[in-house]
Amino acid sequence: MAELMEDQVLMAFTTYAAIVLVKMLVMGPLTGFYRFRRGSFVNEEDVSVRARTEEEKKKLLRVHPDVERVRRCHQNDLENIIPFVLIGLLYSLTGPELSTALLHFRLFAGARIFHTICYVGALPQPSRALCWILGLVVTFSMAYSVLNTTLLL
Amino acid sequence: MAELMEDQVLMAFTTYAAIVLVKMLVMGPLTGFYRFRRGSFVNEEDVSVRARTEEEKKKLLRVHPDVERVRRCHQNDLENIIPFVLIGLLYSLTGPELSTALLHFRLFAGARIFHTICYVGALPQPSRALCWILGLVVTFSMAYSVLNTTLLL
Amino acid sequence: MAELMEDQVLMAFTTYAAIVLVKMLVMGPLTGFYRFRRGSFVNEEDVSVRARTEEEKKKLLRVHPDVERVRRCHQNDLENIIPFVLIGLLYSLTGPELSTALLHFRLFAGARIFHTICYVGALPQPSRALCWILGLVVTFSMAYSVLNTTLLL
Repeated sequence: MAELMEDQVLMAFTTYAAIVLVKMLVMGPLTGFYRFRRGSFVNEEDVSVRARTEEEKKKLLRVHPDVERVRRCHQNDLENIIPFVLIGLLYSLTGPELSTALLHFRLFAGARIFHTICYVGALPQPSRALCWILGLVVTFSMAYSVLNTTLLL
Repeated sequence: MAELMEDQVLMAFTTYAAIVLVKMLVMGPLTGFYRFRRGSFVNEEDVSVRARTEEEKKKLLRVHPDVERVRRCHQNDLENIIPFVLIGLLYSLTGPELSTALLHFRLFAGARIFHTICYVGALPQPSRALCWILGLVVTFSMAYSVLNTTLLL
Repeated sequence: MAELMEDQVLMAFTTYAAIVLVKMLVMGPLTGFYRFRRGSFVNEEDVSVRARTEEEKKKLLRVHPDVERVRRCHQNDLENIIPFVLIGLLYSLTGPELSTALLHFRLFAGARIFHTICYVGALPQPSRALCWILGLVVTFSMAYSVLNTTLLL
């Protein structure tokens, strides 16, 4: 076990995987923050403390574009960061060169952090699209390397 | 390989990871159950056996709040349980003390099981919010421990 | 490390995990393809290049059933493929027989690829339901095997 964690590539992977996963986890509280800020809730039990009358409740149970934007960003993270971590783990186990692996991990982490800034800040396209594509390319490159090394069907 | 699984922390992690993942997987069939029970479907091909006329079809192709509630609970599981399993695996590989690790795993599993009960049962807040926050805190604590042990940027 | 990857079961798992994860990742670009093809976007900044006037923008910011279908398929992948990969990894570490493991991995990969064809192609039920259930059964079977081998509560 201790041996496993002496592997430099695995250490680097662990670091970057933890960073992007924490980034993804933060989207949850961020959604909550926007829900309170914009007064946009989805469950009846969530508004029963703030709203006494039925009318007040209905006002708070609504969809707000800012909340939906953060949620879409979160969903995009789920669709991209989780496959990166899973494929990245397999990739790290196939023993790639440290410099190549670090290049993959750094590009991905940078791309996804900038993707969030573009999405939540609604920056003009194609900034967000390019970040998304860069993340995908990195993940596909690792998947190709994994399949190239350990194909056993 | 066999050596790897003699590690107590990894065994404990495997057990709790399997439990929370199975809990999450059960949300899929539960959604299906509510879809049939409440007559609320989303794909045309899903209702073509039950409904012959166009009118009957339209009646079944609708959104029902109970189905949406289970789906939101499932989504929350995806957003929280998967990061827990991924960070938990890295955490287990960094060789923490068994008692500390078990505390993390047990708190998380308990919090998420109670979270589901609160969500599907629509229990009054802040029960669900507290379960969600407890799960987050456990995952962040493990992520902090991982980054503290293996930082390699 | 190199030792770890000499394990046949882990090699087979790596191969099939990479295949289903790549299949899942492809749903992202496929959604993008349908968005452009059907002219159905969700963020204002995504349509500002194509549409100059406010009216044109509103026309492109709409929900299209074909886009939603691909997105539901993607969501179903997230809910099923990610737990498979996570439980499959734990399962591979418990040292199952190669033939049993291969049976699980092949059935799952086949079921999920056919599931996507059924969903995107809107094939008549119960084809899609059977693929979904087969995938679930495989994952539950691996989870059972994991808990049977390494239970440590």
